[in-house]
Amino acid sequence: MVPAYNEAHGRNRRLTHVDPKGRIRMVDVGGKPVTEREAAASGRVTMSATARDAIRRGAVKKGNPLEAARLAGIMAAKRTAELIPLCHPLMLTAVELEVTPTATGVAIRARVRTAGQTGVEMEALTAVMGAALTVYDMLKAVDKTMVIDRVRLDEKRGGRSGHYRRAGAAAPTSPRRRA
Amino acid sequence: MVPAYNEAHGRNRRLTHVDPKGRIRMVDVGGKPVTEREAAASGRVTMSATARDAIRRGAVKKGNPLEAARLAGIMAAKRTAELIPLCHPLMLTAVELEVTPTATGVAIRARVRTAGQTGVEMEALTAVMGAALTVYDMLKAVDKTMVIDRVRLDEKRGGRSGHYRRAGAAAPTSPRRRA
Amino acid sequence: MVPAYNEAHGRNRRLTHVDPKGRIRMVDVGGKPVTEREAAASGRVTMSATARDAIRRGAVKKGNPLEAARLAGIMAAKRTAELIPLCHPLMLTAVELEVTPTATGVAIRARVRTAGQTGVEMEALTAVMGAALTVYDMLKAVDKTMVIDRVRLDEKRGGRSGHYRRAGAAAPTSPRRRA
Amino acid sequence: MVPAYNEAHGRNRRLTHVDPKGRIRMVDVGGKPVTEREAAASGRVTMSATARDAIRRGAVKKGNPLEAARLAGIMAAKRTAELIPLCHPLMLTAVELEVTPTATGVAIRARVRTAGQTGVEMEALTAVMGAALTVYDMLKAVDKTMVIDRVRLDEKRGGRSGHYRRAGAAAPTSPRRRA
Amino acid sequence: MVPAYNEAHGRNRRLTHVDPKGRIRMVDVGGKPVTEREAAASGRVTMSATARDAIRRGAVKKGNPLEAARLAGIMAAKRTAELIPLCHPLMLTAVELEVTPTATGVAIRARVRTAGQTGVEMEALTAVMGAALTVYDMLKAVDKTMVIDRVRLDEKRGGRSGHYRRAGAAAPTSPRRRA
Amino acid sequence: MVPAYNEAHGRNRRLTHVDPKGRIRMVDVGGKPVTEREAAASGRVTMSATARDAIRRGAVKKGNPLEAARLAGIMAAKRTAELIPLCHPLMLTAVELEVTPTATGVAIRARVRTAGQTGVEMEALTAVMGAALTVYDMLKAVDKTMVIDRVRLDEKRGGRSGHYRRAGAAAPTSPRRRA
Repeated sequence: MVPAYNEAHGRNRRLTHVDPKGRIRMVDVGGKPVTEREAAASGRVTMSATARDAIRRGAVKKGNPLEAARLAGIMAAKRTAELIPLCHPLMLTAVELEVTPTATGVAIRARVRTAGQTGVEMEALTAVMGAALTVYDMLKAVDKTMVIDRVRLDEKRGGRSGHYRRAGAAAPTSPRRRA
Repeated sequence: MVPAYNEAHGRNRRLTHVDPKGRIRMVDVGGKPVTEREAAASGRVTMSATARDAIRRGAVKKGNPLEAARLAGIMAAKRTAELIPLCHPLMLTAVELEVTPTATGVAIRARVRTAGQTGVEMEALTAVMGAALTVYDMLKAVDKTMVIDRVRLDEKRGGRSGHYRRAGAAAPTSPRRRA
Repeated sequence: MVPAYNEAHGRNRRLTHVDPKGRIRMVDVGGKPVTEREAAASGRVTMSATARDAIRRGAVKKGNPLEAARLAGIMAAKRTAELIPLCHPLMLTAVELEVTPTATGVAIRARVRTAGQTGVEMEALTAVMGAALTVYDMLKAVDKTMVIDRVRLDEKRGGRSGHYRRAGAAAPTSPRRRA
Repeated sequence: MVPAYNEAHGRNRRLTHVDPKGRIRMVDVGGKPVTEREAAASGRVTMSATARDAIRRGAVKKGNPLEAARLAGIMAAKRTAELIPLCHPLMLTAVELEVTPTATGVAIRARVRTAGQTGVEMEALTAVMGAALTVYDMLKAVDKTMVIDRVRLDEKRGGRSGHYRRAGAAAPTSPRRRA
Repeated sequence: MVPAYNEAHGRNRRLTHVDPKGRIRMVDVGGKPVTEREAAASGRVTMSATARDAIRRGAVKKGNPLEAARLAGIMAAKRTAELIPLCHPLMLTAVELEVTPTATGVAIRARVRTAGQTGVEMEALTAVMGAALTVYDMLKAVDKTMVIDRVRLDEKRGGRSGHYRRAGAAAPTSPRRRA
Repeated sequence: MVPAYNEAHGRNRRLTHVDPKGRIRMVDVGGKPVTEREAAASGRVTMSATARDAIRRGAVKKGNPLEAARLAGIMAAKRTAELIPLCHPLMLTAVELEVTPTATGVAIRARVRTAGQTGVEMEALTAVMGAALTVYDMLKAVDKTMVIDRVRLDEKRGGRSGHYRRAGAAAPTSPRRRA
């Protein structure tokens, strides 16, 4: 019955977005305390050597394709509640996005923060998706076989469910607070 | 110079969204003919047995979580040009989305059509993403370790680059035209 | 099987947005001809004498509240495909909206046109709704008991289903073409 | 001068969205306290026996059309400030929507909550409208004569104007807090 | 390193939206206190005598073109975070807009308020832009040579950087609080 | 009565967005032929030497702030019909944007194309505005005194009013077609 992460609850967990009659609803978070919340997510786009080379040559010139993906991911995060039907609108206080060339393509990491009554996992995942789709769009003339995968939550802080960190998630590279 | 899929072109291919000075631009499609275009994409969300069980029990009752994901994916497809910076706005004539429980979680397949001057790959991929994120949102209280992956283009018809079909892509299950 | 208006079809008619497996889908309109299409819808907001008086005094001064409702309705029509999950995006060529004080409150009439493969009923109805909600918003401090009702399709032209006109619908006051 | 509901004020009430010069403005709510606010609204779509039958048969299969309307209403509520020109953006904490078949068609009830400086009446009404338009869209091939009506505010809590409840409004069926 | 306005910092100031590696980011405002913030911006549209005359004649009749510009500006302010990639979403508590005929065309002044962790300069400037573009749109059939200029920040209150007032900015005409 | 640019018409020109009763409307373009249309607009942001220096140093590293402004302008162009109340939605086929450092700040030039029934002036101007506001946002911590000005239409092709070119407008640098 609790939307918390707690392995012990096992099979008793319910879909919190489905009410007792089986109807979809937006969970009422009005009774939850306002706390600082943070989530990190990541994903990757794997691509052909030709595509990686095109990015590299582009990157050498201006670094633009990856920058476009970063901006698109930041903007996507702000529209999460429009895209995901049952997400609560949230005032994000920070969105950070890294889009990095790797040996197999591009790695994407997002970190989102807010002070609110519900978490920002979906915002972090949506940022990753927005960036991944933009990478795909910019390279699709070069490689149609690209694959977006390993999109997942890496870390989550704040709220009743406490600190969650995916086994194997990379340590955060970004200092907590810098404005 | 051509945004077409043609293995032979190999390393000569350019990032079509980057102009000769290395600046990002929206490709001018004004000179292309208006043709019928179609794209299919797919992806999956892998999840724990507990999460699959929650979906199954939910599905038994009303089938709602997967239906919500289908609607969210359809609506996301219509907003592709808002999310992906260099996508052209397009009048989609059809969006079909299948969200199916599998042995490892949920499989998502999208098929999008238009009559236009540019393809609908990004719309199909965005539909898959919108559905996948919604599946994640509805199950995240049960399983935070879910992974969205294998998001990729399965098929593309119409336009100068002809018919593309990913090796191993499932045959389309949907008859071409049914309204 | 046909999304047309035809009384004779009676009980054989299907929900065109639901496929044979009972799943919601966006109807494929790709095979339909592009024709000129037009739809008119209307509705009203009934309100207390006090609210009508406030509008009248406001109207005497500047006519603004009704003008705000007209603009909001025009803008809402353009966003129909974002609000209604299975509506096709359409390039509207004209939106006209009348918001008129009456003996019981405010009457709203919308007329929308496009050249496309599907009708604009939903756009006309959404325009009426956008205007009605804005009227409500601007008067809610004066009267919380207002009621929006009689929102309905008055007329529809173009497309396979031919000309539909609601029994009792007012004759159009707007000449067909005036730009 | 007060945007409160107070029958005694009668004819002295002003349109709060119109300033002393008769110009439209967004009311400044910055001086109001942040309080818990809730609003409930309802409406209905009346339709032919054929349409009701189509819903029933659809509902027997999957319940989808009404579920689509519910999701669309929830999503519309979140976009109220985009649609209604002078509405303040608000962080909704809960949106609940019931879409129920009745003897004459479909009944819609929405309940919205926030903690903020202004009420959520418009969000509740917009949720009802979004759901009603979606019902219309999904059934329009079967019945063009449907009417959306009785859209109105049922209840409002929080803020300076205290508790308002429409005479004859049904008692709330939803327990106040369930997350 | 500080996003504050402080003339003395001179050449040491950094682009706060660019991190130490030169990558664009959304500044983390989570550590800032929530304070009342206000910003005023202005701009003008200069136009031919014919256009000014058209506005005047229109204004005599209904004042509508300028009212449409005011509404458009208010609505644009609410969408600032969607348009400007690195702007934080904010719950605006007030937006006021004046669109006034002048000897050379139209003068636009916007004033925006919020209680938040970051300022509302961009919202005020976006309101001015939305209004100016709407003025242009409504008059472009009469005069294609119009120019939008002198769009700038007039005043800013709240937040770490204290009170800023542009040299030569007109005194505010709007009393601080009126709801 | 004609929304064309024709100096001879002088004082007889009407506001085409205002109907004979003085009410605002979206002009009906349904009777106009579909033709290729193009518009170019420009503007500039003037700023302090400190701000220009910050851009230059940023540009040396990655060129990012100006790239962000370019992307924001392209994305803004696609949303013109949402921002400007009476603009028709249009399927843009190309958007090009140049954001160039100058001796006094930044110069912005936009060029937009479509095949449609109405022109793309507003889209080109909105692109300039989106880019200019983004430049302002990224530099506002360094210089609050920046001014956006000289935003104007440079050129317009296609449609009944023929070719318009502002006296003194720079010759287009972009070859007509390059995809």
